[in-house]
Amino acid sequence: MFAVKEVKNPFLEATGLDGDLDEAEKAIQLKVQRFAIEVMRPIAAKLDVMTPDQVIQDSSPIWEYFARFEALGVTRSVLTELGADRLKRIVPIVFEEFGYGDAGLAVAAFITKMPAAAARASGNPELIEKFAGLRGCWVATQADRGSDTIDYEGFELAAGSRQAEGSLRVEVGSDGIVLNGRSSDWIACAPIAECALVHCPADYGEGTWRPNGSVFGAAVFVPLNQPGISRSPANSKLGQRTLPTGSIAFDNVRVPLDYLVAGRDEYHASFFSLLTYGAMDIGSIATGMARAAFDYALDYARKRSQGGVPLVEHQLTRWRLFEMWRKLEIARATVRRAAEYNFSKNGPHLLASAVAKVSATQAANEVISEAVQLFGANGLATQRPIEKLLRDVQVSLMEGGQNHVLAMQGANYLLRAYYGVNS
Amino acid sequence: MFAVKEVKNPFLEATGLDGDLDEAEKAIQLKVQRFAIEVMRPIAAKLDVMTPDQVIQDSSPIWEYFARFEALGVTRSVLTELGADRLKRIVPIVFEEFGYGDAGLAVAAFITKMPAAAARASGNPELIEKFAGLRGCWVATQADRGSDTIDYEGFELAAGSRQAEGSLRVEVGSDGIVLNGRSSDWIACAPIAECALVHCPADYGEGTWRPNGSVFGAAVFVPLNQPGISRSPANSKLGQRTLPTGSIAFDNVRVPLDYLVAGRDEYHASFFSLLTYGAMDIGSIATGMARAAFDYALDYARKRSQGGVPLVEHQLTRWRLFEMWRKLEIARATVRRAAEYNFSKNGPHLLASAVAKVSATQAANEVISEAVQLFGANGLATQRPIEKLLRDVQVSLMEGGQNHVLAMQGANYLLRAYYGVNS
Amino acid sequence: MFAVKEVKNPFLEATGLDGDLDEAEKAIQLKVQRFAIEVMRPIAAKLDVMTPDQVIQDSSPIWEYFARFEALGVTRSVLTELGADRLKRIVPIVFEEFGYGDAGLAVAAFITKMPAAAARASGNPELIEKFAGLRGCWVATQADRGSDTIDYEGFELAAGSRQAEGSLRVEVGSDGIVLNGRSSDWIACAPIAECALVHCPADYGEGTWRPNGSVFGAAVFVPLNQPGISRSPANSKLGQRTLPTGSIAFDNVRVPLDYLVAGRDEYHASFFSLLTYGAMDIGSIATGMARAAFDYALDYARKRSQGGVPLVEHQLTRWRLFEMWRKLEIARATVRRAAEYNFSKNGPHLLASAVAKVSATQAANEVISEAVQLFGANGLATQRPIEKLLRDVQVSLMEGGQNHVLAMQGANYLLRAYYGVNS
Amino acid sequence: MFAVKEVKNPFLEATGLDGDLDEAEKAIQLKVQRFAIEVMRPIAAKLDVMTPDQVIQDSSPIWEYFARFEALGVTRSVLTELGADRLKRIVPIVFEEFGYGDAGLAVAAFITKMPAAAARASGNPELIEKFAGLRGCWVATQADRGSDTIDYEGFELAAGSRQAEGSLRVEVGSDGIVLNGRSSDWIACAPIAECALVHCPADYGEGTWRPNGSVFGAAVFVPLNQPGISRSPANSKLGQRTLPTGSIAFDNVRVPLDYLVAGRDEYHASFFSLLTYGAMDIGSIATGMARAAFDYALDYARKRSQGGVPLVEHQLTRWRLFEMWRKLEIARATVRRAAEYNFSKNGPHLLASAVAKVSATQAANEVISEAVQLFGANGLATQRPIEKLLRDVQVSLMEGGQNHVLAMQGANYLLRAYYGVNS
Repeated sequence: MFAVKEVKNPFLEATGLDGDLDEAEKAIQLKVQRFAIEVMRPIAAKLDVMTPDQVIQDSSPIWEYFARFEALGVTRSVLTELGADRLKRIVPIVFEEFGYGDAGLAVAAFITKMPAAAARASGNPELIEKFAGLRGCWVATQADRGSDTIDYEGFELAAGSRQAEGSLRVEVGSDGIVLNGRSSDWIACAPIAECALVHCPADYGEGTWRPNGSVFGAAVFVPLNQPGISRSPANSKLGQRTLPTGSIAFDNVRVPLDYLVAGRDEYHASFFSLLTYGAMDIGSIATGMARAAFDYALDYARKRSQGGVPLVEHQLTRWRLFEMWRKLEIARATVRRAAEYNFSKNGPHLLASAVAKVSATQAANEVISEAVQLFGANGLATQRPIEKLLRDVQVSLMEGGQNHVLAMQGANYLLRAYYGVNS
Repeated sequence: MFAVKEVKNPFLEATGLDGDLDEAEKAIQLKVQRFAIEVMRPIAAKLDVMTPDQVIQDSSPIWEYFARFEALGVTRSVLTELGADRLKRIVPIVFEEFGYGDAGLAVAAFITKMPAAAARASGNPELIEKFAGLRGCWVATQADRGSDTIDYEGFELAAGSRQAEGSLRVEVGSDGIVLNGRSSDWIACAPIAECALVHCPADYGEGTWRPNGSVFGAAVFVPLNQPGISRSPANSKLGQRTLPTGSIAFDNVRVPLDYLVAGRDEYHASFFSLLTYGAMDIGSIATGMARAAFDYALDYARKRSQGGVPLVEHQLTRWRLFEMWRKLEIARATVRRAAEYNFSKNGPHLLASAVAKVSATQAANEVISEAVQLFGANGLATQRPIEKLLRDVQVSLMEGGQNHVLAMQGANYLLRAYYGVNS
Repeated sequence: MFAVKEVKNPFLEATGLDGDLDEAEKAIQLKVQRFAIEVMRPIAAKLDVMTPDQVIQDSSPIWEYFARFEALGVTRSVLTELGADRLKRIVPIVFEEFGYGDAGLAVAAFITKMPAAAARASGNPELIEKFAGLRGCWVATQADRGSDTIDYEGFELAAGSRQAEGSLRVEVGSDGIVLNGRSSDWIACAPIAECALVHCPADYGEGTWRPNGSVFGAAVFVPLNQPGISRSPANSKLGQRTLPTGSIAFDNVRVPLDYLVAGRDEYHASFFSLLTYGAMDIGSIATGMARAAFDYALDYARKRSQGGVPLVEHQLTRWRLFEMWRKLEIARATVRRAAEYNFSKNGPHLLASAVAKVSATQAANEVISEAVQLFGANGLATQRPIEKLLRDVQVSLMEGGQNHVLAMQGANYLLRAYYGVNS
Repeated sequence: MFAVKEVKNPFLEATGLDGDLDEAEKAIQLKVQRFAIEVMRPIAAKLDVMTPDQVIQDSSPIWEYFARFEALGVTRSVLTELGADRLKRIVPIVFEEFGYGDAGLAVAAFITKMPAAAARASGNPELIEKFAGLRGCWVATQADRGSDTIDYEGFELAAGSRQAEGSLRVEVGSDGIVLNGRSSDWIACAPIAECALVHCPADYGEGTWRPNGSVFGAAVFVPLNQPGISRSPANSKLGQRTLPTGSIAFDNVRVPLDYLVAGRDEYHASFFSLLTYGAMDIGSIATGMARAAFDYALDYARKRSQGGVPLVEHQLTRWRLFEMWRKLEIARATVRRAAEYNFSKNGPHLLASAVAKVSATQAANEVISEAVQLFGANGLATQRPIEKLLRDVQVSLMEGGQNHVLAMQGANYLLRAYYGVNS
């Protein structure tokens, strides 16, 4: 059904085997790619060697990054103007490019905008006025809840037991909402946020637990300049050091009822929606990391000679490079497919994002590990970008849902898709 | 950019996370799925337990299959009428469904039509009249040439050496073409073909070898009812026993010059084109096999109880099922992506098909192996369809290019894509 | 602590990196190796292409195998005479050599002797007289019990439920034992056995179920020439076709109380003991299969040329061969370690055998699959020994305990080892 | 051949399935285990967060470590007194325990002693007097030589080319030895050594290259307090930060001819010998790291609850724990087998160490990665020991020979073992 007239070298887009990108799409791809290389990487290189505290100081280059990101103008509305059909193609590409720049900064840009976007999506003028202009964070996890956090349906509950209540809870009363407790340690951008969108266990006057042993939840906007709010220092972690993380404690913090964007009956869909979107994008970001690793490895293999010829002339090396690139394409293919599904009439669903996120981050981890092996000991020198990728991708395996946890949620929904009920 | 209003069970097409199939596409998918289940599987079950010789007897149900396949009417022209945009989506789906029926029969249908299609594509009225109505086979491989067969560019040639000449050669002279020698043992449909499209080493009067140590080639149509042609008995192999295979020997067989469809300068593109198309479709067929295995395993896991509850209630089993399905989706995603590329302005290229074929067949092999493990000893009983899939998928790893060989060709083209030259 | 004076080619035993075999050990190894090559392989090649029914006919070469095996004289007592220290070294070697010959025949020899050995080990003169001279089988599994069969402690029982009772049960009364029901389909040597050692659920007058939801069991000797006993035809399976398998049905079959070798309180240890021994040996047999595959692949890689030189000159092929051999050594190392443990004062324990059996059979499966890939399509021709190994090793993944089931039992015992209780 | 009388919980040594350790062996194991936990870990935790420069300051706790290591008294002579039979068992155990403490410190202890040991082994009184009391390092690698460094036989040389000469060379003349150039960046303990054992390319008056394109070599003792010697700052790397690494530059450094311990004809055996020993021990150290990771993960899985019960109650978690432990036992089994071979009459050979080193470090990497996944985001917090293991094991994949390089050397020797020549 197609015929090759002449065997040529393959033509690849920057994003690989993309076949039909049009000019508008390529213009955006190129714009973000340039931003990734010229803005994100140099800033990330500086942030990566700072202490967590230095990263959030006024003098930190992170602020220049946020400013440049604003100026870039690759926003939701710009992408939406491309039309629905292009959207499902360009979203994975844009996030791949951000990940090609720096995973932590990509997540930072994404997360700080999330509460503002949620405020706008609510259509509530008060929320928009109050929160659409603020740098936010998503308080999605609580200490000691772990995988329970995303198992709202209680799929993994042991018979007769109930989930942990967690360390952070809201009480929703007729006169307002009160928050008490502490988030998990891993709230992205918590140290630099002006407001938070909090998804956590909730008591609506009937206790925290639902009959099935999981907990009620609520989604609440919280300005972070209120009394009763305190934050941990930015914490120190293996990778994505460009992304400030920490915990937020709430001591009898009160917000008006209007700040509740998803109550008892809307909580699950609200959390599920953000996770579905977020997990997919983490998959794309990981794809960008894998591509960066492949590029570094290929460059090294061309320049480094052993046995009298460049590494790239060694058959085993060539095979390893193909296998790396094949896995990079698996990452791309699964994320693109999830995006196509999630933006279609059949979607969105966490099941699609779970497949893509698990596949893409695992593929990225394998590609990056193999790239490091090609560098040999040089791959572990802290001044090499490949060493940073090895650290950063470890975080990708967790953020947006740890892979085994997402897999189990995916399994449960898969069985529902087949049988309509939980198995 | 999308929002979930209510958490529902996921909606899956028969082909998984396909999001936007329209009615025309679904009609074709459903038609082929029904054919797969109602026609292919029962016939395949009968053929699978016959001897290779019985499979090709007049009394064999294989002839009913070919007749029913003709009647199905899912032809190139029907698909082409759907338009270019749908073509790249529907081709992988159609081949997945054929693979869901039976891999060997899917290949048989595809291969027997190939010479006819090539004749039509040539535009040559004589070739069309002569060959467009015949059941054909593709004599693509020669004994003792193995991976050399597809390494026309000599990427893997050791310094100073040259490829095997192989056991089958044509001489192209001004007064016609003469074939001498024997194909490899694995020519699909050789025992039942009326004509052959032969791609093999060629001598145009300047010897067989090209200066770089690889060989010249020619593509020639050959009616198989000529003197000098003999065939081996259909041979016996582990899997895809529904696909008759064997070798053809040529003893001074002459065909007119007009039967040469790709000569000295067109040979490579001609072979490359068929391989690019074929490898991609083998990937889709393997996807269908993986889906069949998943279906069987899921059904078994629902019905078989251990520890007092169905297997599907065991957490480890649920996780394994998700991992199987995730790999099935990797197979789908990579083949779909290759199709999108191959039907696009950037494509086609063997590099894309190599990624898809290697990824999809390996994923299928893993899914099927895991399905067998879920069945325990029952998975190895010869009357179970899962046992047949385990055998059949082994062939998928080879046909359309053994995976390491495709990977090495992919590697070489990948380096050319990046650097314009062979590394 | 050691110093190399001169770099020489490595010296390898037939069984690889064995360092200190003495003359007595080497003599036995060599004797069994010769038996494997000269007796087992030719007979296995004949049996492999027969129908299951032909395999057990009087005219079948299987009877010559049993006779030659008797004549070989590598018996338990011969090995035991070597002394305890050598025993733990030579048992894995002997079984590796048998597996190097043929897996199915190796299991057949082992299984047919098992009831006789158990009779002798009982010390009961009546049992010895009655059963020590008979060809036996081990009726260890029942239809519909699957993994429940080896989960006597009910580790994997769902809360509040109980195991399947299974299709075969004995009633133990003061006046004798009555068997009713049907074994699983996969009883090795059932079609040719003269007696059986039956391990199955039992009712001692207090019902079949133990308080925890698992079942009581009994181990009973049963002569198979009694009324009420019927056998299925030998069944057909993917691999190890040299090993006749089938089911046995018992209709009110009575045996005297004396034939009970392990009752209510001894059942678990008896079954556990045989499984611990059997799983370890299946690991060794799989090791021998992997070694055979490596040998065939290496030979092929030396003789088959591509790119102008033998495959073995290609760097990627060399690497693949090393990886195959490394996995073969992993199989050896884990089985040897289990044997050392099981014959030591700390052992034996199923945990050790589970590690070895899972590791060795998985390694063997990987080695054999890779060997087939090296052969390309030739690897799937039914006349090639490599094709047979691919089929045979699938059975190894199941026999002696399916790998996931063994792994879960291993997990439960591992946690007990660490914490003294079930987690 | 063994019988279980009663099913008990398995008895495991600290080093797993070791069966027959006697009192003397257990005493040493326990002594080193205590040292690992009480001395190595606390010191390593401090060093790990220091800058490379701080690690080697006078105030650094690294000096206390060296002193305590001396005081421990687990020396070569103590182990040798146990006798040859125990030696091959206890060496892997001792190094596992050191790795259980801290990989970087284990290597530091091993490396700083190496020149002294080599001096003693030489039997040369002058060398012993001069070097047996000094803290040393092994200058085994040169910049730009990479895998060429260990490919003395030129197995991987491209046809017609020759190896890199490297950046460091000695000239051996009748009046002494002159060193010029710079080592690689990764010389362990270079920043703190008093002397070096240098293995590097050499010119004996006939140029650097051997006829086959690889280079001549020499092994020379060099006191590091000489003029012409300069050192890089200690460098910064992902893992094993407790092990100071750096490069040493030699500017016309002269040493007497007596300091040549392995000349033109002895060089290969000398280097090969140290690599054979070192690779094996890196395998044992990695085993200890895997064991530490398993311990942390198991402890976490017992304490962390999700779904209302501890993680360890989840079936999937139990299976993952078994798989981790199984891989830990693979690491142990392969290293023990290499030790048995290397200390036997058939050994030693790099082939044995290559199998063990590749297998054990890969297994350790998998175990540690899986442990981190069990911790979720907590696994990446820099204050957790599991995070440090993830970094440290990356170095293990390289040190003692990068795994692909060792595999290729192993492949070449394996083919020699089978065929007596290079394939």
